[in-house]
Amino acid sequence: MTFDETVLKNGLTVIGEHNPQAQSFAAGYFVKTGARDETHDVSGVSHFLEHMMFKGTDKRSAEAINLEFDAIGANYNAYTSDERTVYYGAVLPERGAALVDLLSDMMRPALREDDFTLEKNVILEEIAMYEDRPSFKVFEEGNARFYGGHPLGQSILGSPESIRALTQTQMLNYFRARYASDNLFLVVAGHYNWDAVVAQLEALTGDWEPSGASRLYPELSGAVGDDRVSLPTLARSHTALYAPGVGAGDPLRAAAGVLATCLGGGSGRLYWALLDNGLADSASLSHDAADGAGVFVGYLSTSPAEQAAALSSYRAVLTRAQDEGVTEEEWRRAQRKLATGLTLRGETPFGRLMSLGVRYQQEARYVSVQETLKQIESANLADAAELLSRRPFDAMFSLTLEPEGVPGAQPGSKPTENA
Amino acid sequence: MTFDETVLKNGLTVIGEHNPQAQSFAAGYFVKTGARDETHDVSGVSHFLEHMMFKGTDKRSAEAINLEFDAIGANYNAYTSDERTVYYGAVLPERGAALVDLLSDMMRPALREDDFTLEKNVILEEIAMYEDRPSFKVFEEGNARFYGGHPLGQSILGSPESIRALTQTQMLNYFRARYASDNLFLVVAGHYNWDAVVAQLEALTGDWEPSGASRLYPELSGAVGDDRVSLPTLARSHTALYAPGVGAGDPLRAAAGVLATCLGGGSGRLYWALLDNGLADSASLSHDAADGAGVFVGYLSTSPAEQAAALSSYRAVLTRAQDEGVTEEEWRRAQRKLATGLTLRGETPFGRLMSLGVRYQQEARYVSVQETLKQIESANLADAAELLSRRPFDAMFSLTLEPEGVPGAQPGSKPTENA
Repeated sequence: MTFDETVLKNGLTVIGEHNPQAQSFAAGYFVKTGARDETHDVSGVSHFLEHMMFKGTDKRSAEAINLEFDAIGANYNAYTSDERTVYYGAVLPERGAALVDLLSDMMRPALREDDFTLEKNVILEEIAMYEDRPSFKVFEEGNARFYGGHPLGQSILGSPESIRALTQTQMLNYFRARYASDNLFLVVAGHYNWDAVVAQLEALTGDWEPSGASRLYPELSGAVGDDRVSLPTLARSHTALYAPGVGAGDPLRAAAGVLATCLGGGSGRLYWALLDNGLADSASLSHDAADGAGVFVGYLSTSPAEQAAALSSYRAVLTRAQDEGVTEEEWRRAQRKLATGLTLRGETPFGRLMSLGVRYQQEARYVSVQETLKQIESANLADAAELLSRRPFDAMFSLTLEPEGVPGAQPGSKPTENA
Repeated sequence: MTFDETVLKNGLTVIGEHNPQAQSFAAGYFVKTGARDETHDVSGVSHFLEHMMFKGTDKRSAEAINLEFDAIGANYNAYTSDERTVYYGAVLPERGAALVDLLSDMMRPALREDDFTLEKNVILEEIAMYEDRPSFKVFEEGNARFYGGHPLGQSILGSPESIRALTQTQMLNYFRARYASDNLFLVVAGHYNWDAVVAQLEALTGDWEPSGASRLYPELSGAVGDDRVSLPTLARSHTALYAPGVGAGDPLRAAAGVLATCLGGGSGRLYWALLDNGLADSASLSHDAADGAGVFVGYLSTSPAEQAAALSSYRAVLTRAQDEGVTEEEWRRAQRKLATGLTLRGETPFGRLMSLGVRYQQEARYVSVQETLKQIESANLADAAELLSRRPFDAMFSLTLEPEGVPGAQPGSKPTENA
C-alpha cells in the first residue's frame, strides 16, 4: 500500500491509497458539511441536497446518472451525517475513470426548481418512514435533548415544517458556500494509476472555486438525567443514552474506543448484565469521536415493564467501571477485537475508502491501517484511568420512548427542546 | 485461489478456498437445518438451539466461550434461516486454529436444563423486540399466508406459545437428529494450511456420528391475492409481496436474479415508478432461490393513504414486464451490477465464506466466483422470456400491515393461517 496526495490549483485535494493487488477500485467525494453546519431555518438542507445531487447536471439528466452508475456496474450510494456528506462507489478497476467522471460531474448539479419541488415529497416520505423505526427516532429526539443548542444535536432529516418551508434559493446558497473546492476532497482506493487520476481531475474540476467555508465549535455542555416520552405507536421501550466522551483529535480517543468495547461490545459487561439473562433485547455502548467533541452513546431496548430495572442495571455497569476501572484481561480482549475488525474492514478498497476519508477530514493527513492498529495497541489502562477520572458516567443522560400507559412517562408530543 | 475438500471417516465434510495473500482467515459450520425442518410442535427450535450453542460445552462454560472469542479477537456471529443454521467467525491467520477449535467444541453443546430454562426468556424478549419492527413482522406473517402449509412458511423465531411449551427433551432429540456429522459441514476461507486443518478436525470430531437426516420437499402452491391486516402500533403501511420463482438447482436461477435486478434493483423500474416521485419510501424486488423452491420477494412501504395506489403501480410494473419483457440494455446493466457486487463480496475470506457455504449446501460442489460470474454473464433475454412465459406475476400475493382506520383493512389480530 502506498499513499498519494495532490492539491490541485483550484484548492481541491485528492488522496489515494494504492493497492496494485486489489480486484476493485473505490472512489468517493467527502464534503465537509452536514447537519451541524446548518442554521435552524434550513434544517435538513444537507440531506435534501444529497438527494438533489442525483437529479442531474448540465450534462446529465437524473435518469442518465442512474443508468450510467448501472452501466459501469457500480455499487454506489451516498450518506449525510452531522459531520459530512459522502458520495461513493466501487467498480472493477477498468471502469474507475468512468466512476470518477460521473461522481465529479454530480458535484456540480443543476439544482433545477422542478426537481427541487418534486424531491420535497421524497424527503417528506423518508421522514415519515422513520415513524415506524423507534430505534432511529429515539436518537433523533435524544440528540436534540442531550446536545441542547449545540450544532451536533441538529436533525439530519429536518422536520416536515423545515423541509416544506425550504426554498430553492436557500439550497443554492448553501450549496455554493459548502460544496466549494476547498470544502470537499476526493478519496480513491485500490487499483489505480495516480497520474491518470490527477490529470483527469484537473480537466474535470478546473472551474471549481474555493469559498473559505468554515465550521463552528461552540462549547458542549450535555444534558443530564433521565427523560421519558410516551408514544401511542410503540410496543417496546427504546432508550438512547449519552455520556461525555473525547473528540477526534484527542490523544485518549483510542482508549475511549477500547473502554466502550469492554463495556458495550458483543460480550462486554452490558451483555452479561442485561442480555444474557433476557432483561433487555439490546444493550450496547460505543464511543463516537466527532470533530471537536466526543460522546459515549448507548442503546437499550426492553419490555415496558422492565425498562426501569434495565436502565438502573445499565447505569450500574457504567458507574462501577468508572469507580473501579476494567481489568487488564478485559482491556486486552477489547483491543484484539477492535484490531481484527479493523484488519477485516481494511482488506478491501471499499472498506478503506471510508476510514481514509473520515480520518483525513478529521486530521488532514493519511492514517494507515498500521497506524490505527498501533494506536489501539498502545492505548492502556492508565489512559482508561485518566478518562474515567473525569467521571463521564456521572453526567449521563437518557431519553426513553415508551408505549402509553407506563407509569411515570410524560404524555409526550414531539420532544425537541433541551431538557 | 484453490479449492480443498475432504470427507472425514465420520462423514463430516470440510471444504476450503485457499488464498495465500489474504490477511485473514474465516471459518463457519453450516448446519443443514432451519425453520423448514421443524414440526409444528417444536416451532422455533432451530433458532432457540442456535442460542443454546453459545451456552457451554463439557469443556467450556458460556462465559468461557464468549471470552475466548474475544481473546482471539474474533469477529463472530451465528444466524438461523428457513434453510440453515450457521456459526462463523473471522480472525487473523495465526489464530485460525484457535477459532476452529472453539467452533468445533461448540457443535457438541452441553444443553443444560438450567440454561435452557433461562434462555427461554431471551428468546421471548427477541420475539417481543420484533413487535416494533414492522418491516420484519410483515414477512413473518406474509410467509405464513403465502406458503400456507409448506415448510418454507414456518416462523424462524416461533411463537411465544411454541417457545413456552418447548421441552429440553424435544430440543435434545432435534439436536441429535440434525447436528449429526453428515448433516453439517465446515467451511474455511483465506490464509490456511489444509493438512493442518484436516488433522485438527480429525482430532476434534472423531466421536461425531452420522444420523441420516433428511428434508421434506412438498409441492409449493403459493397463495394469490391481496390481504390486509390492521395493527394499532403502526404509523405507515408495510407490504410484503410474493410471486413464484425458481429453486436453487434450476438452470434459470441466474436469469431470475438478473430479472429481479432489472425491476427491483437500486435504479430498476420500481425505482422510477414509485421512489423517484415519492409515492413510496421503499419499493424493492429480489429473487430468493431456496432449496427446491424459489420465490420473487418484494417490499413496499408507503403512507397509509397512498398504499392502494402504490400497490397498484407496483403490480403494474411487474405485469408490464411479464407481457413485454425488458430491454437488452436493462439486462446488460443488471448483469454488470450483479457482477461487480459479486466481485466486491469475493475480495475477502469472510465474504467468500458465506457464498461458499450456501452454494455447497445447495449443490454439493465448489462454485467459484469465476463460475458464478459466468452464470450471470451467460443468462440472456431468451432465459428471461422462458421464465416470464410461466406468468409468475399473474400469481402474486401480498400482505399489507397498516394502521387502524384505513378503509378496507380487516380488524386483524395475528394472521397465521393461509389465505
